[in-house]
Amino acid sequence: MPTPSAERSDPEAARKRVIIEAVAPEIDGGAFPVKRTVEDRLRVEADIVADGHEVLAAELLYRRAAESDWAAVPMRPLVNDRWRGEFTVTDLGRCRYTIRAWIDRFRTWQRDLQIKAEAGQDLAVDFLVGADLVAEAQKQAAPRDAQGLMEWALALQQEGETAARLQKALDPELTLVMGRYPDRRFITTYDKILSVVVDPVKARFSTWYEMFPRSSSPEPGRQGTFQDCEARLPYIAHLGFDVLYFPPIHPIGSTHRKGRNNVPQSTPEDVGSPWGIGSSEGGHLAVHPQLGTLADFRRLLARAREYGIDIALDVAFQVSPDHPYVREHPTWFRWRPDKTVQYAENPPKKYEDIYPFDFETEDWEALWQELKGVFLFWIDQGVRLFRVDNPHTKPFRFWEWLIGEIKEAYPETIFLAEAFTRPKVMYRLAKLGFSQSYTFFAWRNTKWELMQYFTELTQSGVFEYFRPNLWPNTPDILTEYLQFGGPPAFRSRLVLAATLGANYGIYGPPFEHCLSEARAPGSEEYLNSEKYEIKYWDLDKPGSLKEFIARVNRVRRENPALQQDRPLRFFPIDNEQLICYGKFTEDLTNIIVVVVNLNPHHTQSGWLELPLEDLGLDPRQPYQVHDLLGDARFLWHGPRNYVELNPLVVPAHIFRIRRRVRTERDFDYYL
Amino acid sequence: MPTPSAERSDPEAARKRVIIEAVAPEIDGGAFPVKRTVEDRLRVEADIVADGHEVLAAELLYRRAAESDWAAVPMRPLVNDRWRGEFTVTDLGRCRYTIRAWIDRFRTWQRDLQIKAEAGQDLAVDFLVGADLVAEAQKQAAPRDAQGLMEWALALQQEGETAARLQKALDPELTLVMGRYPDRRFITTYDKILSVVVDPVKARFSTWYEMFPRSSSPEPGRQGTFQDCEARLPYIAHLGFDVLYFPPIHPIGSTHRKGRNNVPQSTPEDVGSPWGIGSSEGGHLAVHPQLGTLADFRRLLARAREYGIDIALDVAFQVSPDHPYVREHPTWFRWRPDKTVQYAENPPKKYEDIYPFDFETEDWEALWQELKGVFLFWIDQGVRLFRVDNPHTKPFRFWEWLIGEIKEAYPETIFLAEAFTRPKVMYRLAKLGFSQSYTFFAWRNTKWELMQYFTELTQSGVFEYFRPNLWPNTPDILTEYLQFGGPPAFRSRLVLAATLGANYGIYGPPFEHCLSEARAPGSEEYLNSEKYEIKYWDLDKPGSLKEFIARVNRVRRENPALQQDRPLRFFPIDNEQLICYGKFTEDLTNIIVVVVNLNPHHTQSGWLELPLEDLGLDPRQPYQVHDLLGDARFLWHGPRNYVELNPLVVPAHIFRIRRRVRTERDFDYYL
Repeated sequence: MPTPSAERSDPEAARKRVIIEAVAPEIDGGAFPVKRTVEDRLRVEADIVADGHEVLAAELLYRRAAESDWAAVPMRPLVNDRWRGEFTVTDLGRCRYTIRAWIDRFRTWQRDLQIKAEAGQDLAVDFLVGADLVAEAQKQAAPRDAQGLMEWALALQQEGETAARLQKALDPELTLVMGRYPDRRFITTYDKILSVVVDPVKARFSTWYEMFPRSSSPEPGRQGTFQDCEARLPYIAHLGFDVLYFPPIHPIGSTHRKGRNNVPQSTPEDVGSPWGIGSSEGGHLAVHPQLGTLADFRRLLARAREYGIDIALDVAFQVSPDHPYVREHPTWFRWRPDKTVQYAENPPKKYEDIYPFDFETEDWEALWQELKGVFLFWIDQGVRLFRVDNPHTKPFRFWEWLIGEIKEAYPETIFLAEAFTRPKVMYRLAKLGFSQSYTFFAWRNTKWELMQYFTELTQSGVFEYFRPNLWPNTPDILTEYLQFGGPPAFRSRLVLAATLGANYGIYGPPFEHCLSEARAPGSEEYLNSEKYEIKYWDLDKPGSLKEFIARVNRVRRENPALQQDRPLRFFPIDNEQLICYGKFTEDLTNIIVVVVNLNPHHTQSGWLELPLEDLGLDPRQPYQVHDLLGDARFLWHGPRNYVELNPLVVPAHIFRIRRRVRTERDFDYYL
Repeated sequence: MPTPSAERSDPEAARKRVIIEAVAPEIDGGAFPVKRTVEDRLRVEADIVADGHEVLAAELLYRRAAESDWAAVPMRPLVNDRWRGEFTVTDLGRCRYTIRAWIDRFRTWQRDLQIKAEAGQDLAVDFLVGADLVAEAQKQAAPRDAQGLMEWALALQQEGETAARLQKALDPELTLVMGRYPDRRFITTYDKILSVVVDPVKARFSTWYEMFPRSSSPEPGRQGTFQDCEARLPYIAHLGFDVLYFPPIHPIGSTHRKGRNNVPQSTPEDVGSPWGIGSSEGGHLAVHPQLGTLADFRRLLARAREYGIDIALDVAFQVSPDHPYVREHPTWFRWRPDKTVQYAENPPKKYEDIYPFDFETEDWEALWQELKGVFLFWIDQGVRLFRVDNPHTKPFRFWEWLIGEIKEAYPETIFLAEAFTRPKVMYRLAKLGFSQSYTFFAWRNTKWELMQYFTELTQSGVFEYFRPNLWPNTPDILTEYLQFGGPPAFRSRLVLAATLGANYGIYGPPFEHCLSEARAPGSEEYLNSEKYEIKYWDLDKPGSLKEFIARVNRVRRENPALQQDRPLRFFPIDNEQLICYGKFTEDLTNIIVVVVNLNPHHTQSGWLELPLEDLGLDPRQPYQVHDLLGDARFLWHGPRNYVELNPLVVPAHIFRIRRRVRTERDFDYYL
């Protein structure tokens, strides 16, 4: 009969009696890291059991990748053999964690000794068993503990009064010292080392403003420049945005250039789409000459930083027929039998102005390295946020490698995936490394849709790796809801985006100007879209939502509950046109309750119902709700309360709940 | 810059664009096999996606472990990128499965060609692209296909009428042949090979009868023998049982032997507990001399087989102080400082008549091999079913190894885990290999408890590896419900066990005799338990439930819906004392609806509600329910129907639902 073969590699495996399973968080068996941001707590749970009835002990181990030593924190049992431990992630980059557990012989002995003592059994032999355990620990003990353990062992061995020996045996000091020297021979270590990617806080909480730099001129009829963008910074900062995102800033191809409103034929006056990247003036490493120079761009970056604003660049891995790559690397493209390059297609649509890369090329390695170089180039200029265009049309393995490489060298980098595609593709892109992701938010407009979608995003395992970034509009997306809802629709969608998502963004100035005209009925494209022409925007236009946006963004900055996605809970409200939800910090010191009227045309009212005890509110006491948008304060009592929202005034409440902290004479104070 | 390192081992990994994830069934990332029985279908699902918009194809691969060639069945897409395939497991033992998927270039081309044709686009170049694909496939094609493909490629190249070329391009015959020669360079194979353990059908559907062979004598005052057991076989077969399970049949130790009713002191007349294994007459490989010889035992096995009955033995890995192991292998036990062997304890309880093995012994390997030898010895005698006593007090790794070894040589072996312990320990034992498991069924008596528990067992992932075996009573368990409910309690618990579980068993004759007297108030032990004394049972005792049991077991044999655990669904019924559920074959040809009155004292009535459409019943037509217990037939119409159950008559209905198949003149026929 053969030796138990699985046990050969680890000589002690056969006697390791503790098992560790169902570890969480763990994505796809540890194939992908979970995501956190600096100073977050990582809470780790596992099922830990052994045969028999002995007392177990477990530790959560963690370390920075580069370091060799594990730090350990004890785990504690919850119910049903579930254990939990947690630690704070302090540094950017990858941190590893795993679990180990063992049978705690000494505490088992103490527990049994106590039970036997209570049952009046003879303990003579038991004391000797304990003395052996202490003597065993003494052998491996540090000098400061060794002497004490030896004395304890002797004391347990000495015959004497049972009560005195028992007290000695159960001495908390002894328990503490013995806890330092478990019998490590049969310790079980979980068979996977798991990873958490620690991102900058902006990966979790960011407020994006998208604009076309070429339309930043303060006067009509002139192309905007990076210098004009500098002048725009105070406006953007006033509105409360901390990321300024530019569509591609590279030279634009002229072959098959699209005209205004995306018509196939262009005239010499047409400026082309910024996504038609590359011309004789350069490709992904060049700046469109009319925007300025690289030096101008770097200066803009520095100026923006003074306003607390990071600039995000658009990385679109595709080229115009005039891009230098087409000449220099013909093997990176797919050629058709007629000796032309295969342009982008989504039949029956043709994009003859765009060539996709052929990632199945034999020369894939050079292609991968070149594209990585594009990121490194802009990182060298000082950029740390990238909005990646259509990542779902490039291979998953490419992104996993590229993001892994970049983040190893620059762990502060943030990648936003612009993938509007099949849900599982979007989730996979997030798993493999994208820091934030566009979502279907723009098309979730009813209460039921919003509740379903955000429950999935925040309450399922998806939360561990997928960070939604919510956009009510983009240059490609002007939803029907915005087309026909007027300014109330823009306001309510803004509040939803800004409070359902810790990360959100708008495409301005069309958003704050409530621009709502589509190119054609049924189309979601803007009429006279800025994608194909240069615009002039009057920032002082009457009716602009800029002050409303500034207010909402200030509320976000001042309320930590709105700076995370996970603690989201929908509350019942008896009107299908009203949606109500709460967000709160774990310690409940900051509780926000949002009510939005989803009907942009009519006043809606209803009774909402708050789970007071879950929110830490005494159901017998009144509490204050402070509307952070309108600054009104209401005194509520009990779970059910009435709200009424006129969309033409303001379509939402963002309440902060204030608990009564004390009463003096006739005054109540709320915190 | 380094070469993408993860891609080095598989040179094509970088260009494999399809990913396969969320494969089901898959237990703990493939660490454990799922379970099926011979001739079951194994349905496998996965999420399969790629970048871009191309058409994918996927195959489920499977093979017997011993064979080298994979068989393949196509998978088909469901919704949301979920794919499914299935195959039948035909042979006992382990079968492996995995998935592969690829981008189907040809079907992508056909799809796009059709769209472009409908849009009236010029297809000249597209036909050439397709011709290249066909020519490429032709190079690797089998001779029977190569000629045809060459002709197709030429036809697509030839200029001519678009309509004719299009017809050629979309020819289903061409699609079929091309499907045989996918571009295999970048095929993705799932990175795990998963396993299914294929057990005999009895692992899924079995009916157990536990009895003490020493109490099988037909006359009072004489010890029963294996020969007496032979005479008992017709009775057991008449009751409808197909597994006869014996407590340990080995010599019993005398040191610290327990007396009647488990008192610590015994007299010379006391026969001892069969679980106190081992004396000077032998240990786990010996037969208690008063039961007969090994030859007698083998004859009993053979006779039982004639009745369709398998004999299951109890394997209890523990010894009496008199077991030969104690002398021969002192290192297999834990010694106390006073030079005595550590007996079993569960403080404050002491079991001085029982020594557990010390699995942490340095000599563990010899111990493991010896214990494996115990199974092999009884397998040599012809035994294939084992009820394993307290497996949760021996290490998980030991069982995983032992069951793996035994089942590799004897895949028809069935292991029943007798572990009443922490739920996660019970599930782990099932994962690592036990074929069936005892459950908490005995203590789940209310409607809510039963619904919760059986929903967990049958509707969660647990189903893939944990097969419940339900016991209303055992020699150790006489529940309060049975103590105080009288014969109606025994009947209703029998129906619940026999219909909620495809595997169930009773401990008889106490069960059919409705024996209900406990040793003490609050105790679940039988008064004058057979564990400590020899009994005489009068099988013709008035009031025996034997005919009722025979009826229930016949219903089980005749209705495949009751022979599996998974298709279980609880139906609403508006009385907390009545429980209603359905079981059905996947094709709905056999539908059973069970209603049980959980109150053993009073008649209960209520309205139940059946989901007619889910059961394949036309809501506009009447249907027949045939009570297989009482043989009454009722004509029902619509989902809501009235039931009334008097526990003193019969506390349950087991309805078979019969659909109206045709009407002739005045007669309706129901199937």
